[in-house]
Amino acid sequence: MKTDLDTNDDSQADMEVAPPRLNHAFLEELGTEQISRRSFKKWERIMHSHGACVQEIWELRNTKLEKVTDVVIYPNSTEETERLVKLAVKHDVVLIPYGGGTNVTKSLLLNPDEQRMIVTVDTGRMNQIKWVDKENNMACVGAGMMGQDLERDLNKYGVCTGHEPDSSEFSTMGGWISTRASGMKKNTYGNIEDMLCNFTYVTPTGTYSKTQAWPRISNGPDLHHIVLGSEGNFGIITEATVRVRPVPQVKLYESMIFDNYEVGIKFMHAVSRTSSWPTSIRLVDNTQFQFGASLKPEENSKWNEFVDAAKKFYVTKIKGFDPNEMAACTMLFEGDETWARSAHKTICDLGKQFGGLIGGPENGMRGYLLTFLIAYTRDLAMQHNTLGESFELSCPWTKVSETTKRVRQ
Amino acid sequence: MKTDLDTNDDSQADMEVAPPRLNHAFLEELGTEQISRRSFKKWERIMHSHGACVQEIWELRNTKLEKVTDVVIYPNSTEETERLVKLAVKHDVVLIPYGGGTNVTKSLLLNPDEQRMIVTVDTGRMNQIKWVDKENNMACVGAGMMGQDLERDLNKYGVCTGHEPDSSEFSTMGGWISTRASGMKKNTYGNIEDMLCNFTYVTPTGTYSKTQAWPRISNGPDLHHIVLGSEGNFGIITEATVRVRPVPQVKLYESMIFDNYEVGIKFMHAVSRTSSWPTSIRLVDNTQFQFGASLKPEENSKWNEFVDAAKKFYVTKIKGFDPNEMAACTMLFEGDETWARSAHKTICDLGKQFGGLIGGPENGMRGYLLTFLIAYTRDLAMQHNTLGESFELSCPWTKVSETTKRVRQ
Repeated sequence: MKTDLDTNDDSQADMEVAPPRLNHAFLEELGTEQISRRSFKKWERIMHSHGACVQEIWELRNTKLEKVTDVVIYPNSTEETERLVKLAVKHDVVLIPYGGGTNVTKSLLLNPDEQRMIVTVDTGRMNQIKWVDKENNMACVGAGMMGQDLERDLNKYGVCTGHEPDSSEFSTMGGWISTRASGMKKNTYGNIEDMLCNFTYVTPTGTYSKTQAWPRISNGPDLHHIVLGSEGNFGIITEATVRVRPVPQVKLYESMIFDNYEVGIKFMHAVSRTSSWPTSIRLVDNTQFQFGASLKPEENSKWNEFVDAAKKFYVTKIKGFDPNEMAACTMLFEGDETWARSAHKTICDLGKQFGGLIGGPENGMRGYLLTFLIAYTRDLAMQHNTLGESFELSCPWTKVSETTKRVRQ
Repeated sequence: MKTDLDTNDDSQADMEVAPPRLNHAFLEELGTEQISRRSFKKWERIMHSHGACVQEIWELRNTKLEKVTDVVIYPNSTEETERLVKLAVKHDVVLIPYGGGTNVTKSLLLNPDEQRMIVTVDTGRMNQIKWVDKENNMACVGAGMMGQDLERDLNKYGVCTGHEPDSSEFSTMGGWISTRASGMKKNTYGNIEDMLCNFTYVTPTGTYSKTQAWPRISNGPDLHHIVLGSEGNFGIITEATVRVRPVPQVKLYESMIFDNYEVGIKFMHAVSRTSSWPTSIRLVDNTQFQFGASLKPEENSKWNEFVDAAKKFYVTKIKGFDPNEMAACTMLFEGDETWARSAHKTICDLGKQFGGLIGGPENGMRGYLLTFLIAYTRDLAMQHNTLGESFELSCPWTKVSETTKRVRQ
């Protein structure tokens, strides 16, 4: 398959959308004073009625969304959200919480048969850090705060969450909780459920919050895990208290290449058995490897030099080696310098046992950052009439190879 | 307070217990063929009607348990448990799951007003390893398997769970899940909820189990967390699949002493901010420190030599230092040798910054193992008319000092 970059398929300039269905009694009682913004604008409604699935983006660009929200409301606080929920119950209005709109689970897709008025609740104005408690390693933030803003602002206090999902440029704290998000640096910082100490959850039957953001206790059932991954079904998250850690002393990137993907899997499996897990580690197959190389910032970049050197190395050192089979592994070690250097050495030594060739930190960082480009790449390809999709799955070690093969087919 | 070891208060030789209340229709339909053992013996009923709270042990030794179970049944399998649950529902019989009986939450205390027949379901005969999958780092075990048996048998496969609660000599897999147990080595291996991949849960409305023990997924709500910590309220766990790891290359113990408990807390806080968390770390105050020293295996032991040397060191080096204020810290680094040695060095260097004095591995191991003695110590003291209790709590760093002070008062 070839993507012709000259075939530029522009997205549509307009979209036909039904006029908003209004529940006048609800709107009247809600008023405008206690809500910072409410919007009936067509494109604001459209943009709040889809996630980031390829089907949704395709419809957005080329056809139409079957159903669009009736109004977008932006509460400023937990109190405003509570009032909104109370009135929605009273007037039988549908509420859809909205964070960054980056979900790939069709959670924002609206039921075309819905007869009630639909209100999308954008948490985007609850986007402040409320407090940072450095002594107890916690921070409380508004649920609408986006990943990149959160890390930037926390850094001013000398701390970070370390939560870095692919979507962190747009996705929000509330969204991470609602989707039980994982991050690329989870080996060091944990997933969202490991960071979450407390949250405020506005539901039709009351607002849930723990009196203290205590550490883990041997007690149950744990209600956090009902909300984690619930995709906005039971209520609206307005703020969350999460674990923070000191900004790491070092971020040490590294990369290695292996004969082929199968050898790479064996290496990854061996890494999982050590005591020195990298903060992030990622194995890319030959297709992705060559694709990454093709996204070169300029001719004769260091990346190309490296790829050429690697090819030569293999061709000269290992008879019969096929440069079109090579797989690459990118790593990040983030934390205290002593730990990072020691873990780095352990993992590189292990890689050499699998015939791995060190690719250096520049390529490691490049490979790591490429991850953030995946979604953009898909949308760029779509602009040129090529459909692609990225998705994540988890499976046992013994099924990794077979699963990858079947995805390729 | 002084415990006079000559005042030996023997526990009572007998206890008055009401005869078992029998539901004949239930017992008849249950039969005896499909159940390996059912017992109406008085002491078997008594021993299954209490946990390990000081109140329960006191009543057991000196007075009486207000209510005792009517029969103890030992199912052999999930199928037998399913049949038991079905018949209990049909005949309106109460079921109480029983693991190791080590809970300190009064979960086994029976309602004295209960009019229905009470059946205690001892999982002790479902105590086998079903399979070990070394490639995928998982093992499936019967819910009644006790901690020490589990680790011993897993070691034969070259793997371990690393779960080591104080009670692991008696407590069971099913009990750990039902109480959301933490272990002393959780920094390396995680708590029970981090290890749990799947389990079989027999409830009145059906048996729950995942089709595959998949790794973590970004999905929710997570039903595991309803059962974790549910104290046997919703059903009976019959087997569980947990994460296992290779048996560690090394177990490196260490100990340090500090001027006083407050300095020790500051050191612990600093440790929490490094990338080199020990597998286990524990700070003991002066009382516990001296108590530990008093449990010497023989006169002139190395422990006493160390304590004497430490006292001299402080008295000579630091003017005005009070040997009755010293606090001790015990640590364990468990894993690959490179990691263990590197982390050990990092933490010891950090300790020195807080004026810590290295106590050596022997005292570290001793301190670590002392933990397992705490429950026995309490029961030994009770035999000599002294009441004591041990309990665990978790609190934010800034409240550790105040909490400890109030407990002492």
